[in-house]
Amino acid sequence: MEKKQNKLKVIFLGGVGEIGKNMTLLEYGEHILVIDAGMSFPNEQMPGIDYVIPDYNYLIQNKEKVCGIVVTHGHEDHIGALPFLLKEIKAPLYGSNLALALVKHKLDEAKIKNIKMNTVSDEDVINTGCFSVEFIQVNHSIAGSYALSIKTPRGIIFFSGDFKIDHTPIDHKPINLTRIAEIGKKGVTLLMMDSTNVERNGFSMSEQNVYRNLDEIFADSIGKRIIVATFASNIHRVQQIINCAIKYDRKIAFSGRSMIKIAEIAHALGELKYPNEKIVDIGKIDKIPYDRLCIISTGTQGEPMSALTRMSQNEFKKVVISEKDIVVLSASAIPGNEKLVYNVINNLYKMGAEVIYQTLSDVHVSGHACKEELKIMFSLVKPKFFMPIHGEYRHLKQHVKLAQEMGIRKENMIIPEPGFVVEVGPRGIKRTESVTAGSIMVDGSVVTEDSEMILRDRRHLAGDGFVIAIVTRHSDEISPPIIIARGINLSDKFVEELRDDIEAELTRDKLDEYDIHSFKQAVRKMIAKPIMKELKKKPMVIPIIIED
Amino acid sequence: MEKKQNKLKVIFLGGVGEIGKNMTLLEYGEHILVIDAGMSFPNEQMPGIDYVIPDYNYLIQNKEKVCGIVVTHGHEDHIGALPFLLKEIKAPLYGSNLALALVKHKLDEAKIKNIKMNTVSDEDVINTGCFSVEFIQVNHSIAGSYALSIKTPRGIIFFSGDFKIDHTPIDHKPINLTRIAEIGKKGVTLLMMDSTNVERNGFSMSEQNVYRNLDEIFADSIGKRIIVATFASNIHRVQQIINCAIKYDRKIAFSGRSMIKIAEIAHALGELKYPNEKIVDIGKIDKIPYDRLCIISTGTQGEPMSALTRMSQNEFKKVVISEKDIVVLSASAIPGNEKLVYNVINNLYKMGAEVIYQTLSDVHVSGHACKEELKIMFSLVKPKFFMPIHGEYRHLKQHVKLAQEMGIRKENMIIPEPGFVVEVGPRGIKRTESVTAGSIMVDGSVVTEDSEMILRDRRHLAGDGFVIAIVTRHSDEISPPIIIARGINLSDKFVEELRDDIEAELTRDKLDEYDIHSFKQAVRKMIAKPIMKELKKKPMVIPIIIED
Repeated sequence: MEKKQNKLKVIFLGGVGEIGKNMTLLEYGEHILVIDAGMSFPNEQMPGIDYVIPDYNYLIQNKEKVCGIVVTHGHEDHIGALPFLLKEIKAPLYGSNLALALVKHKLDEAKIKNIKMNTVSDEDVINTGCFSVEFIQVNHSIAGSYALSIKTPRGIIFFSGDFKIDHTPIDHKPINLTRIAEIGKKGVTLLMMDSTNVERNGFSMSEQNVYRNLDEIFADSIGKRIIVATFASNIHRVQQIINCAIKYDRKIAFSGRSMIKIAEIAHALGELKYPNEKIVDIGKIDKIPYDRLCIISTGTQGEPMSALTRMSQNEFKKVVISEKDIVVLSASAIPGNEKLVYNVINNLYKMGAEVIYQTLSDVHVSGHACKEELKIMFSLVKPKFFMPIHGEYRHLKQHVKLAQEMGIRKENMIIPEPGFVVEVGPRGIKRTESVTAGSIMVDGSVVTEDSEMILRDRRHLAGDGFVIAIVTRHSDEISPPIIIARGINLSDKFVEELRDDIEAELTRDKLDEYDIHSFKQAVRKMIAKPIMKELKKKPMVIPIIIED
Repeated sequence: MEKKQNKLKVIFLGGVGEIGKNMTLLEYGEHILVIDAGMSFPNEQMPGIDYVIPDYNYLIQNKEKVCGIVVTHGHEDHIGALPFLLKEIKAPLYGSNLALALVKHKLDEAKIKNIKMNTVSDEDVINTGCFSVEFIQVNHSIAGSYALSIKTPRGIIFFSGDFKIDHTPIDHKPINLTRIAEIGKKGVTLLMMDSTNVERNGFSMSEQNVYRNLDEIFADSIGKRIIVATFASNIHRVQQIINCAIKYDRKIAFSGRSMIKIAEIAHALGELKYPNEKIVDIGKIDKIPYDRLCIISTGTQGEPMSALTRMSQNEFKKVVISEKDIVVLSASAIPGNEKLVYNVINNLYKMGAEVIYQTLSDVHVSGHACKEELKIMFSLVKPKFFMPIHGEYRHLKQHVKLAQEMGIRKENMIIPEPGFVVEVGPRGIKRTESVTAGSIMVDGSVVTEDSEMILRDRRHLAGDGFVIAIVTRHSDEISPPIIIARGINLSDKFVEELRDDIEAELTRDKLDEYDIHSFKQAVRKMIAKPIMKELKKKPMVIPIIIED
C-alpha cells in the first residue's frame, strides 16, 4: 500500500532550447520512471561542442529508485544520452523493436553490456515500480513511435511523445485513436503533449503524400542519376524512395555512415523491405549506369561531415556530382541550419546538378502534429491537467493558449522549464522545488557539466584571437618580450612598437616595485590598450613572466 | 563618336552569398558607371568580422574611368561600402532624396566631404560619361527606390534594383509600370533583375495589408504598452505604426540608434510624417502611462546589441519588459538569423510579455517581387538578354528557368558570379575575362582583403582552443616546460603528465641533435598526440623556444 504522504512528481531534465524533450522523470515514493534519455545539438554559444546531454545528477543521487527507462521512439534526441546514462545507472529498458535496436547499436559501440531490453507493441502494458505503462501506437518520422499512458497512484499520465496523426501511414499502423479515446473516457489526470508544430494551422500531411511527388521526379529523370537525401532514421521515407527506385528499375546505394547502418538494422527487423539484389555498395556504383541508379544519402541539414555536404564540395570520392545528377532534399531545414542547407544547394547547382528541395516541390512532410491534430488529442484525452512539452518556450506558450481554447483552465496548466519539479495532486498541479538540470557537454571525449569558462574563452578567441607576451625576468635585467599573436591582425611594425613600449616601461628598476600579479597586469594593459585604440579589437591577452 | 572596337562590359564585384547585389559596374571605353556600393554581413566562416565590403581594387586601378555612382536605394547592402569607396574614388552620386540623405549621414560620420550628390526623381535622366541613366520608381521595403534604364552605346540595360510591385503603396507612388512598358517597347538589350523571391509563387502583398493586422493588435491591446520592432529603414512600415499609434491615442518613442537617426532624417525630408508633439524621448517614457505609449524599436533580427535583444535580456534600462507589454515583430527573419530571433521571442515570453510575430499574424510583407511580378516585368521589358541578380546561386538558377518559360533563349542568359566580366554585343552576351572580386573584411578598424589565415586561426581556436608550451634552452640544461592552455579542458594532472613527458624526452643531450625547427616539431607532437588520443581534440599547439 502506498503511503498517504507520497506525492507524484514530474521532473524535467536538460535540453538545449527545447523543454521536456530529452528526459522526463516520474517520481513517486521510492520509484522513478525515466522517459527518454536524448541528446541535443549545441547552440551557437557552444563552439567546439559535439553534443549536449541532460545533466542527470539527480538520477545518480537517486540511483536505487530508478525502476525503468521507457523510450518513446528511436530519435537521437530521445535515445542519444543512453550510452552515458547506462554507464551510471542500470535499469531495464522498454521500447519498440526499432528504437531498442538503435539503442543496442549505440550500447554495443560504447561497449555497454547486460542491459535488459524489453520490446513492446501497441497496447502492451509493462509494470515497473508503482507504475504501469501502456504503449500506444502513434505516427512520427520514425517507425516504432509510441505515446505512453502511465497509470500512477495519482491517476493516469498521458505522455504523447513526438507524434502526428497519419491515417494512411506507410506501415499501415495509424495512430491508435480508438485506444486513446478509451483511456480518455476512463479519465486522464495529466496530459503532456508535443508542441513542436503548435504554430501551424490545420493538419500535417500524410507520409503517403510524399510518394506522388517522388514518383513524378523519378518519372521525369530519364537518363540521369537520382540522389535523394533524407534522415537515415526516417525508415518510411527511405522505404518510399526504395519503392520508387524499384518501380523505375534503378539499383539502390546507401550513402553515409548512419544511412548504411540504420538501413541494415531496419532491414534485419523487417521494418525496411527490399530485395537484396536491388542494393549495390556505394563503393561499386561505377558499374551501374547513371540512369539505373538511385543513391539514398544522409546530409539534409548541411552537416559539414555528411555525405551530401561532401559531395557538394567535391570531397566525396565515391560520388562525383555533375549535370547528370538530380539531387532531391527530402527534408526541411531544422531552425538554425538554413544557411548550411542553402550552401549545399548552391554548391550542387554550381556543379551542374538539378536540385529539388522543399520550396520547389513537396518532397517532405513533418512528423509533428499541427494545431487541428492537437485539438483532436485534447478532445479524446480530456485531461484534467495539462503541460506542454517538446518545443521552445514560444511553442509551449502557444500550446497553453490552445489548451485554454479547448476548455482547460489556466490554473490547471504549467509551462515546464528544465529542473522544474511539478507535483500532481488530486486537486491541482503545482510547481514545488527545483532539481539540478543543466547540460552536460560532450567536447571530444570530455564530458563536463561546467564548461562555461572554456566556452567563454572559445567565443572570445573566435572573435578577437589572442596575444601572448613572454617576459623573462633575470636577476639584473629583463629580456625583450616575446610577443605571439593568433587570430588577430597585428602588423610586424605594430608588434615591434608594443615590444619597444613594454621594454621601455618595464625596466628592471621599476620592476622591483611590482609583485608578480601587478607586473602581469601592467604587461596586459600595455598590450590591450593600444590594440583597442588602433584596431578596435579586444584579444585575449596572456602575460607570462618567466623568472630566471 | 565611339570607337568601333569598344565593348560594353558588365562587371560584378563582391558580395557574400548573394551575387550582383553589393556592386555592379558598366564599362564602355573610357567610362565606368558604378551601380550601388553596399556591404554584407559576415557568414559563419568569418568569426569576429563586423562586415564585408566588395573588393573594389578594379575600380581603384581604373579610377580615372569612373564617371558616376548611381544608388538604387538606401539599404545598407547597397550603400554601406560608400564611405570606404569614396575615400579612394571621387565621383558624383545620384539617387533618391532618402537614399542620399542616408549616404550623407554615413559620410558625415566618416568625415568625408566634398562629394557631389544629385537627387533624382521618377523619370529623371542623368548623363554621365557615355551613359544616360533614367531612374524609374519601383516599390521596395524602403522609400525612394528606383530601377535604372541605362542607355549605353550598345543599347539599353534595364537594372531592376531591389523591387516589388505595389499598386497601393503607403506613399501613393506605385511602380511606374507605364514607363517600363514604354521603355520595353523601344527595345531593351539586357535585363538584370532581382531574384530574391523567385522561389515564391504568386504576388507579394501590398504594404497596406500590414495595416489591418497592426490596427487589430492596437485595438486589442487595451491597458498594455505596445512595442513594435521593425527595420529602421522601412519608413513606410514605421509610418503605418505611427498612424496606428496616433489613431489609438498613444505617444510614440523611437528606440535604437538607427531607428532614432533614420526617423529624424526621413522626417526632415517629409518622407515620414508625424506631429512633433506625438513623439516622446525614449529616456522619458516613464512619464507616459503604459496604455498611452507605443515604442518603435530596432532589433527584428535578434542582433546582440540591438534595442529589442537587450530588452529581452533585461539589459535595456529604459524599457523593462513585463506582462504589461505586447511586443510585435514586424519583420521576418533573414536566413541565418532564425535562432537569434527565436531566442528573443522565447525570452520576451519568459518575461511575461505577449509576443506577436509572423507565424502568428501577418505583420510583415516582403519587399521583393514574387514569381508573378517577375513575369510582369519580363512581359513589359521584353529584353533580348537576361542576367539574374540579387540572390543566392539557387535563386539565380530558378530565375533563369523562369526566364526560359518567359521565352528568353538559354544562350541569351548568363548567371553571374563575383568577378565575372560579361560582354554585351549586338549578337549575344558572353563571359570574357575575370577581375579581382573578393571580399574586403572589416575587422574592428582593420580593413583587409587577405584575412583567410586570421579567420582559419579563429575557427580553429573557437573549436579546440590552444596550448602553448614554453621551453627555455640554457647552455647546459632545459627548464621544465611551461604549459598554458585556453579554450580546452586539460586537467592539472594531464598538464603535469605532458610536462613530465616533454622533460623526460627532451634532455639536453638529445637536444643537440635538433635544429630549432625540429625541436619545435618534437614539442608540438608531444602535446598534440596525447591530447588527440585522450580528449579527441586538436587544439592549436604553439611551441616557443627561448634560447637563454
